[in-house]
Amino acid sequence: MEEFSPKFITFEGGEGAGKSTQIRLLAKWLTGRGIEVVMTREPGGCPGAEQIRELLVKGDTDRWTSMSEALLMTAARSEHVERTIKPAIKRGCWVLCDRFFDSTIAYQGGARGLGIERMQELQHIALHGLKPDLTFILDLPVDVGLARAVGREALKEDREDRFERMNYAFHENIRDSYLKIAALEPQRCVVLEANKDITSLQNDLRAEVNHRFGGIQ
Amino acid sequence: MEEFSPKFITFEGGEGAGKSTQIRLLAKWLTGRGIEVVMTREPGGCPGAEQIRELLVKGDTDRWTSMSEALLMTAARSEHVERTIKPAIKRGCWVLCDRFFDSTIAYQGGARGLGIERMQELQHIALHGLKPDLTFILDLPVDVGLARAVGREALKEDREDRFERMNYAFHENIRDSYLKIAALEPQRCVVLEANKDITSLQNDLRAEVNHRFGGIQ
Repeated sequence: MEEFSPKFITFEGGEGAGKSTQIRLLAKWLTGRGIEVVMTREPGGCPGAEQIRELLVKGDTDRWTSMSEALLMTAARSEHVERTIKPAIKRGCWVLCDRFFDSTIAYQGGARGLGIERMQELQHIALHGLKPDLTFILDLPVDVGLARAVGREALKEDREDRFERMNYAFHENIRDSYLKIAALEPQRCVVLEANKDITSLQNDLRAEVNHRFGGIQ
Repeated sequence: MEEFSPKFITFEGGEGAGKSTQIRLLAKWLTGRGIEVVMTREPGGCPGAEQIRELLVKGDTDRWTSMSEALLMTAARSEHVERTIKPAIKRGCWVLCDRFFDSTIAYQGGARGLGIERMQELQHIALHGLKPDLTFILDLPVDVGLARAVGREALKEDREDRFERMNYAFHENIRDSYLKIAALEPQRCVVLEANKDITSLQNDLRAEVNHRFGGIQ
């Protein structure tokens, strides 16, 4: 399908919004149409970024200040872009990325109070102005997302209950921040109602990709 | 000496400019006058920053892109400021810091080509606008600095010859970048001719501290 120039699509949303399931299904659909797809995720996605991720996830939750956390996330992202994302696009692949800079903007900028605009500036500097072609924001009422995430964690052996420990208001703030980001960049960001079954949401995603990039169906 | 409000002084310059010797002598002089002094250095200066430093100094020299390096340095700095520098100033100590944000601006912004202004913006965002009260830039012809640094390395058992391997033009670029930074912020930055004996240079430093902050002698 050489007629489609490669696209960089990111997926954002709070806990339990269904990002990874939707990415997998979208990748399957695109692949079936002859498009080569690279799926990746943040923080991480290349060796250097994974090492930075190690620093972020180990130790106490208040180990880093919010700003240090934002800078480490952004350093990992800068590596991820140069080592994984740009080379994939250059090879002609579409890149589907689970979380990207809007996560730093919503979590550290919004919920942690560093400021949405300040975090946007930081991303602009760090990535030399690079932006995704399209960003899906999977929007969900906080209680629904947390219930899903808690249910998922309960199935794991090394169960983490950080979702339960986290403040409800914190998650509300993340949701509001994503909606603000979308309002600031309506060309790039599409907010999708994620409180529906997997197939319906996937159909919405595919329709949007078709609408944006045309004639993939 | 309660009449002196605590000051934050940084020391910058290329390789072999004599920063650590001059800091030690200045600290001794201030301490002798009843001022409590904290000496620190970058990258590092607190546990989180030291862990980031580990990531930076291990492995191949081209392991990180210049931007990732700048972001990691800045993350370490943000920790250093919050965990070490601000608390020391709050306790009433003067802080003497061997390298600070001007190193990132001169090395990554100037010599590595990321742009002096872009790196200044990054520091402004990351440190919420915090700046040193005074910055000494110890200026030295590149060949003199490299000869000193090479001589120092030759005395070590685990000798590093990276100074010799590094490009002369790279060091010229660092020197020029420091002079540009000083020209942009003449209130904060004082350029001192460092191609002189240790005592004469120390006297210049003390004279400037007295001139700025008054009556310490």
